[in-house]
Amino acid sequence: MKIAVLGVGTTKFGELWEFSPRALVKEAVSQALADAKLDLAEIEALYVGNMLSGILGGQENLGALFAEELGLRCPAFKIEGACASGGLAVHSAILGILAGIYKTVLVVGIEKMTDHKPEQVSAALMGAGYEEERMAGITFPGLYAILARVYMEKYGITQKDLAAVSVKNHYHATLNPKAQFQFAVSAEQVLASPIIADPLRLLDCSPVSDGAAAIVLSSKFKTKGKTPVYITASAVATDSLSLGGRKDLTSLLATVRAAKKAYQIAGISPKNIDVAEVHDCFSIAEILACEDLGFFSRGKAAKEIAAGKTTLNKGKLVVNPSGGLKACGHPVGATGVKQIGEIVIQLRGEAGARQVKGAKVGLAHNVGGSGSVAVVHILKNE
Amino acid sequence: MKIAVLGVGTTKFGELWEFSPRALVKEAVSQALADAKLDLAEIEALYVGNMLSGILGGQENLGALFAEELGLRCPAFKIEGACASGGLAVHSAILGILAGIYKTVLVVGIEKMTDHKPEQVSAALMGAGYEEERMAGITFPGLYAILARVYMEKYGITQKDLAAVSVKNHYHATLNPKAQFQFAVSAEQVLASPIIADPLRLLDCSPVSDGAAAIVLSSKFKTKGKTPVYITASAVATDSLSLGGRKDLTSLLATVRAAKKAYQIAGISPKNIDVAEVHDCFSIAEILACEDLGFFSRGKAAKEIAAGKTTLNKGKLVVNPSGGLKACGHPVGATGVKQIGEIVIQLRGEAGARQVKGAKVGLAHNVGGSGSVAVVHILKNE
Repeated sequence: MKIAVLGVGTTKFGELWEFSPRALVKEAVSQALADAKLDLAEIEALYVGNMLSGILGGQENLGALFAEELGLRCPAFKIEGACASGGLAVHSAILGILAGIYKTVLVVGIEKMTDHKPEQVSAALMGAGYEEERMAGITFPGLYAILARVYMEKYGITQKDLAAVSVKNHYHATLNPKAQFQFAVSAEQVLASPIIADPLRLLDCSPVSDGAAAIVLSSKFKTKGKTPVYITASAVATDSLSLGGRKDLTSLLATVRAAKKAYQIAGISPKNIDVAEVHDCFSIAEILACEDLGFFSRGKAAKEIAAGKTTLNKGKLVVNPSGGLKACGHPVGATGVKQIGEIVIQLRGEAGARQVKGAKVGLAHNVGGSGSVAVVHILKNE
Repeated sequence: MKIAVLGVGTTKFGELWEFSPRALVKEAVSQALADAKLDLAEIEALYVGNMLSGILGGQENLGALFAEELGLRCPAFKIEGACASGGLAVHSAILGILAGIYKTVLVVGIEKMTDHKPEQVSAALMGAGYEEERMAGITFPGLYAILARVYMEKYGITQKDLAAVSVKNHYHATLNPKAQFQFAVSAEQVLASPIIADPLRLLDCSPVSDGAAAIVLSSKFKTKGKTPVYITASAVATDSLSLGGRKDLTSLLATVRAAKKAYQIAGISPKNIDVAEVHDCFSIAEILACEDLGFFSRGKAAKEIAAGKTTLNKGKLVVNPSGGLKACGHPVGATGVKQIGEIVIQLRGEAGARQVKGAKVGLAHNVGGSGSVAVVHILKNE
């Protein structure tokens, strides 16, 4: 598989009360098209990744809506798979290209969350979950807190080990001008922050965010813009929606399956990855991801992360140079698209202060629900 | 393009208060798998078409949700494009097969609407529309009433001409045991029914419905089940979401564009079509569809329909033998999938009392919003 990423763009992530969803999409797309030096007329299909526009805003039909707003008159689709909506939209766009039906396509991820009350957002996000869990009153931090508790008991790690993830990702975000939280936090600060769902504290959790990200994918490798980076694998897997339906809570089986398939398609192993954007919606999620993606062996990821093995300019493999969901922000539908954008910038050597030196192979990992769906993409710069 | 439809299934459409969305999906899928004589294990991806589950039920992530419910552990996607969600899910599934990534896939369309208050459903459906139109208080019957009014003034047709569509589709539905309204109506009854949005009356409008439909698509043409029917074209097009953004209100440009592309891909013309399921959400919509699809010339469709040219056992080309959205029912996300299922049954010669004799080439036409997106599929039985 070889699909060129011709252009990437992203808005700043954060509380963007002054921008409408349409304005955010337009900004991200205009950046991506400028980056690719492409005209709109060359776009043959539009894929939109979004989760909450219906529940929170009563607006559906986002494919046609954004196509019109952008001045496109091409086929347009909205793909939804909870927090993996962006990654699934990228996968779907790739299928459209591989099918030979669309040559050059635009993928947009968008979410507008901060205009709504926290309790509305919290309830809406449980739309990704299992009905019985939702009706029992559990929220996403609660679900991941269960995963964290089981992992901590099995492998003997502490809240301080969890905190190392947030410390690293906040540090990375200080180097990313698009990040929602461009400030560092110490382990002490994380451990002093309020408990959200024991053992997860406020600074273990990714925020509620607004933002949009766009990428242009193509089967045409020649470009007037930047040298393209290539997607060499795209894989999706699902698992039980409910935690109760799973055999093991110390691993996300959907990630394991999607990663295995992606490595196979790309013909590489986890050792080949120089830079990865993984789905750290909570600190425990990055620990699980680093093991499920094969970066570290079972039970070891927390210590390795704390030792700086995935920190910029320290580790051989850098994880979440953008700041991740934790510190760059997590506008749900945008995340999976932004992850690909970050890897592309890294593989082009354009990441500035947060550049992973000499990065040649990258991975993006997007999860929906508490692990019900996972998407893994592998990218190379040659 | 040649994709085999190995199996089809559909629940009864109607007010199905005693069944959950999961139960409906399971029933439709179990029919489709039995029809194809396939095991679940042979399914490599699941595509779900649904519009309203988020807005009305607070439930998203339907790909993973139904995958789990069905016992599948394959990649799963929800595709949304308003009332065209089902057709877009079929198109997306076809791209997955053409890409060579998934060989045999399951497409499910599902909607559960009658558990909610009519005003909630009416408001939720406007999630397909343009924000300003929605905020101005216009509803879907209102949007189509505008299209009807403009068409009636331009071509001099009357409410009685509109009524002929409903009379035909209700007659067809008397022959379809899965239809929501298995009773005939006379033109007099249509014309005596209450005005919903002038000039559209109650019996010009498709109902609010529950239901699910499923089809199995494959690149493998050999089957243990029925002789496959083939999809030989799949095309999508978009147009302005708002009526205000369109140059012409007497035609749906999205349908014109999708149809042109589909005929080109299949290498046929409208004259070759023996049977069609078209998107008759309102009587005027079938008239527009019959012209936009090239079945009749501009301004002529109403008279031709009234003359029986698209009626079972009368016309050379039969339109909406299932009863259409009007009388078979319109569970939004299910409609586009059910249409393909009906055409398959017709092309196999299995439609019983409503069989279009000797049908060899069929067309399915699914529209989202008031014409913002259209999907056209062409099928053949050889």
